[in-house]
Amino acid sequence: MSDTIFLLNGPNLNLLGKREPEIYGYETLTDIENTCRKHGLKLGFNVECRQSNFEGELVTWIQEAREAAAAIILNAGAYTHTSVAIHDALRAFAGYKVELHISNPHTREKFRHTSYVGPASDAVIAGFGTVGYVMALDAVAAKVKSSR
Amino acid sequence: MSDTIFLLNGPNLNLLGKREPEIYGYETLTDIENTCRKHGLKLGFNVECRQSNFEGELVTWIQEAREAAAAIILNAGAYTHTSVAIHDALRAFAGYKVELHISNPHTREKFRHTSYVGPASDAVIAGFGTVGYVMALDAVAAKVKSSR
Amino acid sequence: MSDTIFLLNGPNLNLLGKREPEIYGYETLTDIENTCRKHGLKLGFNVECRQSNFEGELVTWIQEAREAAAAIILNAGAYTHTSVAIHDALRAFAGYKVELHISNPHTREKFRHTSYVGPASDAVIAGFGTVGYVMALDAVAAKVKSSR
Amino acid sequence: MSDTIFLLNGPNLNLLGKREPEIYGYETLTDIENTCRKHGLKLGFNVECRQSNFEGELVTWIQEAREAAAAIILNAGAYTHTSVAIHDALRAFAGYKVELHISNPHTREKFRHTSYVGPASDAVIAGFGTVGYVMALDAVAAKVKSSR
Amino acid sequence: MSDTIFLLNGPNLNLLGKREPEIYGYETLTDIENTCRKHGLKLGFNVECRQSNFEGELVTWIQEAREAAAAIILNAGAYTHTSVAIHDALRAFAGYKVELHISNPHTREKFRHTSYVGPASDAVIAGFGTVGYVMALDAVAAKVKSSR
Amino acid sequence: MSDTIFLLNGPNLNLLGKREPEIYGYETLTDIENTCRKHGLKLGFNVECRQSNFEGELVTWIQEAREAAAAIILNAGAYTHTSVAIHDALRAFAGYKVELHISNPHTREKFRHTSYVGPASDAVIAGFGTVGYVMALDAVAAKVKSSR
Amino acid sequence: MSDTIFLLNGPNLNLLGKREPEIYGYETLTDIENTCRKHGLKLGFNVECRQSNFEGELVTWIQEAREAAAAIILNAGAYTHTSVAIHDALRAFAGYKVELHISNPHTREKFRHTSYVGPASDAVIAGFGTVGYVMALDAVAAKVKSSR
Amino acid sequence: MSDTIFLLNGPNLNLLGKREPEIYGYETLTDIENTCRKHGLKLGFNVECRQSNFEGELVTWIQEAREAAAAIILNAGAYTHTSVAIHDALRAFAGYKVELHISNPHTREKFRHTSYVGPASDAVIAGFGTVGYVMALDAVAAKVKSSR
Amino acid sequence: MSDTIFLLNGPNLNLLGKREPEIYGYETLTDIENTCRKHGLKLGFNVECRQSNFEGELVTWIQEAREAAAAIILNAGAYTHTSVAIHDALRAFAGYKVELHISNPHTREKFRHTSYVGPASDAVIAGFGTVGYVMALDAVAAKVKSSR
Amino acid sequence: MSDTIFLLNGPNLNLLGKREPEIYGYETLTDIENTCRKHGLKLGFNVECRQSNFEGELVTWIQEAREAAAAIILNAGAYTHTSVAIHDALRAFAGYKVELHISNPHTREKFRHTSYVGPASDAVIAGFGTVGYVMALDAVAAKVKSSR
Amino acid sequence: MSDTIFLLNGPNLNLLGKREPEIYGYETLTDIENTCRKHGLKLGFNVECRQSNFEGELVTWIQEAREAAAAIILNAGAYTHTSVAIHDALRAFAGYKVELHISNPHTREKFRHTSYVGPASDAVIAGFGTVGYVMALDAVAAKVKSSR
Amino acid sequence: MSDTIFLLNGPNLNLLGKREPEIYGYETLTDIENTCRKHGLKLGFNVECRQSNFEGELVTWIQEAREAAAAIILNAGAYTHTSVAIHDALRAFAGYKVELHISNPHTREKFRHTSYVGPASDAVIAGFGTVGYVMALDAVAAKVKSSR
Repeated sequence: MSDTIFLLNGPNLNLLGKREPEIYGYETLTDIENTCRKHGLKLGFNVECRQSNFEGELVTWIQEAREAAAAIILNAGAYTHTSVAIHDALRAFAGYKVELHISNPHTREKFRHTSYVGPASDAVIAGFGTVGYVMALDAVAAKVKSSR
Repeated sequence: MSDTIFLLNGPNLNLLGKREPEIYGYETLTDIENTCRKHGLKLGFNVECRQSNFEGELVTWIQEAREAAAAIILNAGAYTHTSVAIHDALRAFAGYKVELHISNPHTREKFRHTSYVGPASDAVIAGFGTVGYVMALDAVAAKVKSSR
Repeated sequence: MSDTIFLLNGPNLNLLGKREPEIYGYETLTDIENTCRKHGLKLGFNVECRQSNFEGELVTWIQEAREAAAAIILNAGAYTHTSVAIHDALRAFAGYKVELHISNPHTREKFRHTSYVGPASDAVIAGFGTVGYVMALDAVAAKVKSSR
Repeated sequence: MSDTIFLLNGPNLNLLGKREPEIYGYETLTDIENTCRKHGLKLGFNVECRQSNFEGELVTWIQEAREAAAAIILNAGAYTHTSVAIHDALRAFAGYKVELHISNPHTREKFRHTSYVGPASDAVIAGFGTVGYVMALDAVAAKVKSSR
Repeated sequence: MSDTIFLLNGPNLNLLGKREPEIYGYETLTDIENTCRKHGLKLGFNVECRQSNFEGELVTWIQEAREAAAAIILNAGAYTHTSVAIHDALRAFAGYKVELHISNPHTREKFRHTSYVGPASDAVIAGFGTVGYVMALDAVAAKVKSSR
Repeated sequence: MSDTIFLLNGPNLNLLGKREPEIYGYETLTDIENTCRKHGLKLGFNVECRQSNFEGELVTWIQEAREAAAAIILNAGAYTHTSVAIHDALRAFAGYKVELHISNPHTREKFRHTSYVGPASDAVIAGFGTVGYVMALDAVAAKVKSSR
Repeated sequence: MSDTIFLLNGPNLNLLGKREPEIYGYETLTDIENTCRKHGLKLGFNVECRQSNFEGELVTWIQEAREAAAAIILNAGAYTHTSVAIHDALRAFAGYKVELHISNPHTREKFRHTSYVGPASDAVIAGFGTVGYVMALDAVAAKVKSSR
Repeated sequence: MSDTIFLLNGPNLNLLGKREPEIYGYETLTDIENTCRKHGLKLGFNVECRQSNFEGELVTWIQEAREAAAAIILNAGAYTHTSVAIHDALRAFAGYKVELHISNPHTREKFRHTSYVGPASDAVIAGFGTVGYVMALDAVAAKVKSSR
Repeated sequence: MSDTIFLLNGPNLNLLGKREPEIYGYETLTDIENTCRKHGLKLGFNVECRQSNFEGELVTWIQEAREAAAAIILNAGAYTHTSVAIHDALRAFAGYKVELHISNPHTREKFRHTSYVGPASDAVIAGFGTVGYVMALDAVAAKVKSSR
Repeated sequence: MSDTIFLLNGPNLNLLGKREPEIYGYETLTDIENTCRKHGLKLGFNVECRQSNFEGELVTWIQEAREAAAAIILNAGAYTHTSVAIHDALRAFAGYKVELHISNPHTREKFRHTSYVGPASDAVIAGFGTVGYVMALDAVAAKVKSSR
Repeated sequence: MSDTIFLLNGPNLNLLGKREPEIYGYETLTDIENTCRKHGLKLGFNVECRQSNFEGELVTWIQEAREAAAAIILNAGAYTHTSVAIHDALRAFAGYKVELHISNPHTREKFRHTSYVGPASDAVIAGFGTVGYVMALDAVAAKVKSSR
Repeated sequence: MSDTIFLLNGPNLNLLGKREPEIYGYETLTDIENTCRKHGLKLGFNVECRQSNFEGELVTWIQEAREAAAAIILNAGAYTHTSVAIHDALRAFAGYKVELHISNPHTREKFRHTSYVGPASDAVIAGFGTVGYVMALDAVAAKVKSSR
């Protein structure tokens, strides 16, 4: 089984740390990705980090994971609530899949209460802020190891 | 009138034949496209085959068909159920349009019962497996010839 | 396996060719049935053609197909959208089943977007006009032969 | 008051015992009707058993019961969920009325959770398999006797 | 243009006058039909009166009216609220069409507020009791005469 | 009992005959009211005709009818679909009440399928054009006479 | 297999026989439970009767049945329509389960048409009054014996 | 503050002027963009004009505006009704935002009555045809100047 | 064609400038109307300004515009979301019609997302504050001139 | 702060005491208003009592209260359920606001369960009959005094 | 008739006065209960005050009131919106029943707009803060006295 | 700030490890609680573990946490989807709150897609099996420490 974990971020998550940092913190997506890559190495995994604003690119990367990754951590951002295409791509990926959100969608607008990612994922982490990425990594690493 | 028929496939259809082949069969999208191109030539048509995971690319190709094609056979995959943009592009195409699905969406989840492609298409073929592509080609070729 | 294919038409389809022929064409249901019977013989099948305005009669014929037919092509007309009884009868028929419509229901009123025939059928052909009957026959014949 | 109880079965119930008997049992509708007729005689009642796939015929029989029966046991099958006409006929029948189902509709598809028979009936028995017919007969017989 | 008006009654309307006559009156459907036939003759029309509990039979009669009648007065009873098949048959009839109800459906259960007959009819009379039939006849006769 | 019948018209009905007369006819609301007043006298009734674009004024007139009228014929126009206030005023009027529409609302937009006037009225006439007013007058006059 | 059947009653069923006895009868819940206990002994079963107004207590008793009972007869009263917790507890009980109601919920308010007990039960008895308890006991006893 | 205004057009708007010009006019998107650029210069603004059929590209451009533009005029076309991603990108842009449509969506299909762009915009202009672009430019320029 | 434009304001818009002026500005409806009248004269139009809290009065004024005005600018306030009567009056007005709102309704409560004015108007301006009135005037004047 | 309390009654409340007095009591709206005026004086308040069947007049009076009253007690009758205009007027009134109903709307038809007055009011009194007016007056007087 | 009034408070109301007292006030539930008991004595009533977080306990107490109380004042807190069991218990209590809320639920989240307590109560008081308890007591005492 | 974390489990979670252990694992709730208590001590926290089938008891414990705990980890089981009372109790708790589920509710029945716990919680962990409890503990401990 692959030693790689895909950490995919969807639309607008490239703005992390750049938007109202006094509120959301100064940690950028690059910071998070660096943290995750280093943390992954300690856990014995190569963490492949990518971000896209394009639904089609996220679909393509999830397909690519079929060959290249043991698990996917996906923060699909707004596409969580609208993308059947990502749902279908996830269904075609046999490895472990975690839906991730920085905030808790249930405390936000009603259209964020629907998730197409959820029914195609094994697990969900939401609302822990950027810490959630590391939590997901730990959990995914353990799952992958235990299933080897 | 153009001698070309566009055969467009949407997200995740590039996985055909690669995913659980013992179940879904060993026929890949490339196989289907080759079959269709050859079958098209027999019918006197050039079959232009394309696949994309990007909604925007499918929109662009449908627009392109306005100049380049006499008819479109479209398996929009997951975008069938969510894309108003593809709906609008189809409305702007005056030629014959067929909505195609490999499985029958009415036997699947509820969110696959809605189609934005349908109200902008002339006809529908669904549930015949990959055979449906050739059926569509035959029907479209006959329609185009009869309307010349 | 039986050499017979049932071609069943529901309410108001007996009006085909009699209603505004300058628009809908001069082809009557009898014409279509004759065409299908002849075409069936070429394919090696006896095509049994029946039409009824009664939901109960369509249910009875579908039940009868359990003994007498290898496949059913069903244009249930208006009962497509309201009949759970036909849905149940189709579920009890193990052969190949095709839902057929002359026009494309998704381009018509909203109450025609629901189908009780669909979730109990293998495949759908819609919007090809009366040509759809022959298309269905070809596809059904191939399916039956390949499953022998 | 009449000594007759109507036992009416709706669409597709004539298939009982003929469809996957290794699963649903080898008891046919004729077997059930014979059992009920004999059991009825022991209880002092003539059990009139009829089955139809036609909504209109069921309506007519329920109307006939106004003159001819003290009670109705009705398994309306699929018409349970769609027939306002049967609802109205039942409302016009003053005797005791039992809605019967072999399986429990609440464990099946959502469209089987609506009942037009229910709001026009006194009581419901569902999910006991074919035993439910005898249970209904016992209960109805007792009700009719106690109301004399 | 034909001198005949079809007066069609749907399910359970054959019970008129037989059910709680002290409340609904002693006028039976036969009485109403006789009144209408006589009244029709005075207006110069042959009034053809029929009643059925079968949806399919009503569809067939409405089709027959295409050849045989100048107008249809239809009290579809419970099928008003469920029958797309009757809707379609009415759409195929070019003459004048009146939807009729003895009581006012809007004062009854919610499922009687939907009408498939309405969108396919020219006019509606409801709530006038059995007098409504004669009102409809007068109105229809005038419309037919004025359109000659 | 009063010899007066109120004939009330709601918003925009004062435009009758002024708007696209080549289509809707040259008959103005004044013409209709004159016709009805004359026809009422023949039937032995004083027909009090009023029109208002104000919901509150219609409510007030219906209240006034409690003292002054034996029956109300009400074409509430657009308020039919939105006015609970008119509904309540009608409920407080004990005489005979007819809901009237010139066209058939079920053939128009969906928001015209709801009626607050209906559940508070005895009867409905719709779709007969301006002839409906005289039909209503005849029917109401007969009802009032028969209930004296 | 256990010789015990649990007969559980939910909120407000302790008021049986105390509330408007001239209407609902003088039979109290204690009377019903005594009858059932005696009837159970004749059938060879110990009938354990309990009532609670607490959702949590009903959940606990259903869990207890996993060790102590062969079947459950449950009249969950109002919790039928609101309790996912009871639904889950029933799902975890492998024995036979009957949903019971004294009246027929489909003839009452709309919020009583939803049942969380139903999808987790084998069968339903409703509307037979307190006689339903004995009917359920007979049926359950037979099912348990036949599955031994 | 930036002297630049972003004028962004979404899917299918590149077809303006090419599709049924006798109806929609001969003005192409290029014409409109040229007009807007010239008009912008008169107002003292650089108008940056872009069009894309890709949701992800529109998201990226809106993000880019955070650094590069004082205001956005956005005709998101079909994505108006489906894109939460564009909604989120707009929320992250602090400048003035105008939602623009050439036609009035409320006069079109129901699925065009929902807008995800609206709740994230300051203002809306719709239905003025291509003139709306210049109106928006005037209004936006005035807003930006007054907020300096 | 008339040289007059009707500028109609609905309920509560007479409070403009009087309610929390430190927030909404000190500009009253009278100020706006004076501005519009002067601006109209420059454009060669007489701007007739009226405000009413009565739905019926707005209906009457829109009817009056049929004779007296070339166009209507309508801020119907709360009646935007509830008035079918205003919708009907607008439909009967052949001139140019603009729906106007000071704030953007899509950023407010859900019941403000429905508009009965929209489907009967040519165009919409919303969210530009009181500036929107002048924008509307400019646009309307241009439309009227170009259609002469 | 003003010493005046507005007591406003909406459509059909002028019928109080006149309609079925043997049921609803002989107390007219005038009686209630006299009682309230006297009771108000004892509490140190001038109670200004008004009733209208016009939505627009109620809006105008609520606006007037901005200058003239410390609090409003509003029984908006049927407009409670339909009037966004009254909702908006109440939002613009800074004083204390009580929604009042003589009966309890939750025990009546479903369309009376929605309230536009509620979300714009501080408090609700319903179901206490005409006594509720005095209760409201006492509560409002205390609130106004305590906030001085 | 009993001299006792039950004052029942549901879940989380025991937190009154303990939670953000600077905002909600320092008055605890014990303070309110003491006030009500004293006030009750002046009115000639024993006020029995109880609070529970358990739905089942509230049901039990309402049942107990059948023997022990002339009236119930019930602030069911969150169970107002979810408890059919409390609804049923209230229906079985013949005395006077008041639904009470400290805040006005219509100004809060949508799921607080539904009330199962309302349709089973005589009257409602909401939004008056803790003063509402004394208002309810006064009103209930008067109702009980007048019905003796 | 308290050194205690409440770990609360709702209905049916006491069955963990006892129900189909070959599938769900042999780990009981007691095992999980022991693991968490030990793990908590390592993190410097006292983990107080409780389970109840009673909604009211969970409410009471959440209230108790206001004095006794720095954070709550809550697996409310079925009450997640139905309990407004638990929602309200959580809102009154100022510490950190995590919603926990062993499986991913979005992959189960539709009624499990609604959460009343979510909108009142800071974060969510779902689908990681019993490992989720330790993950939650780690995350909560870190949050509490960082907020000291």
